[in-house]
Amino acid sequence: MNTNTVPSAPEPQSLFLRACLGLDVAQTPVWLMRQAGRYLPEYREVRRQAGDFLSLCKNPELAAKVTLQPIERFGLDAAILFSDILVVPEAMGMKLQFLEGEGPHFPEPLTRQADLDRLTLPDPEVQLGYVMAAIREIRRILPSGVPLIGFSGSPWTLATYMIEGGSSKKFTLIKTALYNDPGFLEGLLERLVTAVVHYLNAQIDHGVQAVQIFDTWGGILGPDEYRRFSLEPMARIIAGLNRNRPDGSRIPVILFSKGCGGYLETIASSGCDVVGLDWTTPLGQARARLGPNIALQGNLDPAILYANPQRIRSEVRRVLESLGRQNGHIFNLGHGMEPNIDPLKVPQLISAVREESRRIRTP
Amino acid sequence: MNTNTVPSAPEPQSLFLRACLGLDVAQTPVWLMRQAGRYLPEYREVRRQAGDFLSLCKNPELAAKVTLQPIERFGLDAAILFSDILVVPEAMGMKLQFLEGEGPHFPEPLTRQADLDRLTLPDPEVQLGYVMAAIREIRRILPSGVPLIGFSGSPWTLATYMIEGGSSKKFTLIKTALYNDPGFLEGLLERLVTAVVHYLNAQIDHGVQAVQIFDTWGGILGPDEYRRFSLEPMARIIAGLNRNRPDGSRIPVILFSKGCGGYLETIASSGCDVVGLDWTTPLGQARARLGPNIALQGNLDPAILYANPQRIRSEVRRVLESLGRQNGHIFNLGHGMEPNIDPLKVPQLISAVREESRRIRTP
Repeated sequence: MNTNTVPSAPEPQSLFLRACLGLDVAQTPVWLMRQAGRYLPEYREVRRQAGDFLSLCKNPELAAKVTLQPIERFGLDAAILFSDILVVPEAMGMKLQFLEGEGPHFPEPLTRQADLDRLTLPDPEVQLGYVMAAIREIRRILPSGVPLIGFSGSPWTLATYMIEGGSSKKFTLIKTALYNDPGFLEGLLERLVTAVVHYLNAQIDHGVQAVQIFDTWGGILGPDEYRRFSLEPMARIIAGLNRNRPDGSRIPVILFSKGCGGYLETIASSGCDVVGLDWTTPLGQARARLGPNIALQGNLDPAILYANPQRIRSEVRRVLESLGRQNGHIFNLGHGMEPNIDPLKVPQLISAVREESRRIRTP
Repeated sequence: MNTNTVPSAPEPQSLFLRACLGLDVAQTPVWLMRQAGRYLPEYREVRRQAGDFLSLCKNPELAAKVTLQPIERFGLDAAILFSDILVVPEAMGMKLQFLEGEGPHFPEPLTRQADLDRLTLPDPEVQLGYVMAAIREIRRILPSGVPLIGFSGSPWTLATYMIEGGSSKKFTLIKTALYNDPGFLEGLLERLVTAVVHYLNAQIDHGVQAVQIFDTWGGILGPDEYRRFSLEPMARIIAGLNRNRPDGSRIPVILFSKGCGGYLETIASSGCDVVGLDWTTPLGQARARLGPNIALQGNLDPAILYANPQRIRSEVRRVLESLGRQNGHIFNLGHGMEPNIDPLKVPQLISAVREESRRIRTP
């Protein structure tokens, strides 16, 4: 057998993977960013058992358990690994704390070249072995028809936390680095690219069937800076992923740069299979700009889950009708679930997506 | 004399007013959002004298003094009234506090129709008489060649503070109102439109020569919601302004919706003379989309003021070269000055704008 020949795998069956690859589906698949989280009482219970957020991330059994919770409760079309983007900087040697009610905190943020030299390139099987164990456990207990999505933060987004020391409103420190000391910033991004390639490839080896790159803070950059400091490192990551599996299947890559509706063409040039959209860019407009060969994910304003069931349904319909019968759409929110959402809103949302998308597809 | 005939005023001489109207200029005019503010030691001194921020806003002599400070120090091409957008809700009857280091706070935010019925329509000459007195004092002491810009918050942006009770990250309350109780929200916006029309017309009567509407939070809305809840009220305000003065001069209106690069065509349909841009939409792209009959203001990332003089100049050049020799551009930041900017950066910026724009315009 010619070793260059990739065995031709049968088309995937799951709605989610089919939509990622632009294949036809009878109804639109749906999952929700931060679908495993504080809005679920059963999550808060497991979190109490674990002690704190980081301990939960590092406990493979409990991480697997909370990953499954929204699948069991709601029957979503994909599961997403329960973890946090900041486990990568921690594995590179940075002290990480999650302060209750205040978010993540790096008490020793990066300020100079010497700080970079102290960062290590983590072996995902060692320093991030707990993530790999969680992935194996999730795949063991997850119904086989439900794909598992792995993820990482983008290098730019990770760098904002590593340089600012935590969440930021003004990004003074990283922007000062960007404009005054781009070599320092690029040195950090380069290390992060390598770490994330290893990390995501290990996730793929252990069983994730798609990966999403979360670029939460790309939108604070102007177009040239976005291209250089956010998109370019992500494109290098995508080029380094082992997306074609030995069985011939393909691992789709979803890229979500929040607040970057103006940069969609740049995003699509990254090599990703799916572009994630927030609610400020209509799906139909994105499709018109990017063409049919790249799938779209999104884009309901999560605040619509504060509304009544009729309004949720009409907003879901509006999102779906923006694309009509076209393939290549995964329904999602335009940002993560909020902790104060009533869990009863989720089945209303899911039913609306399934029923309305079937209706739209019925000739 | 036919009373319908508007006397034909001579063209304005100031670079700023000429650029607002698309007239030719020898160099690009420049002013900076929040140019009178905490980054200036002489401002901090006056603020100490006044006691607190709101007392400073309400003291016409001191408000005039800080309005002039950046003009005297830097020779900017326009002055902007020192005040705060939230004086309008306060004048409508809401208690307003500025908590040191925490920003504005309405201890009794609006939650229901009955709250709206308690709001009053302020007489700008009475409840906001201190603003009018400040405008008169500023015009008295401001060099006659420097135009004075008045301003207001947009109804949508004011409503976010009035409903959330202060600054917000997630805008849960106003979005819940938007999706579940749009009648309540529209009732509030309607009252704000009327109040702002009266307020800005009074500012014009007392001597401002241009007005800017600050729509800081339009960018959290999807396109349909932006049009209905942010743009539409602003368009009604613009239609209600007395822009043609008895002497034949025209009061230009600048509309700045931050984070709304995707909605520029909608913004331009408001009737404004100038569209303010943040740094995510290149000026050349905005001009290509909107045509030459509407002026543009912006759009340097304020974080560039953390950089060294060479970098500031090269970034200024990049902004200017995006439009080349085209008219109708007022140089500004894409957002307000930060309190920790070194004041010495401002003359570097201004010199760069003037020298580089003259160079670009030289055949």
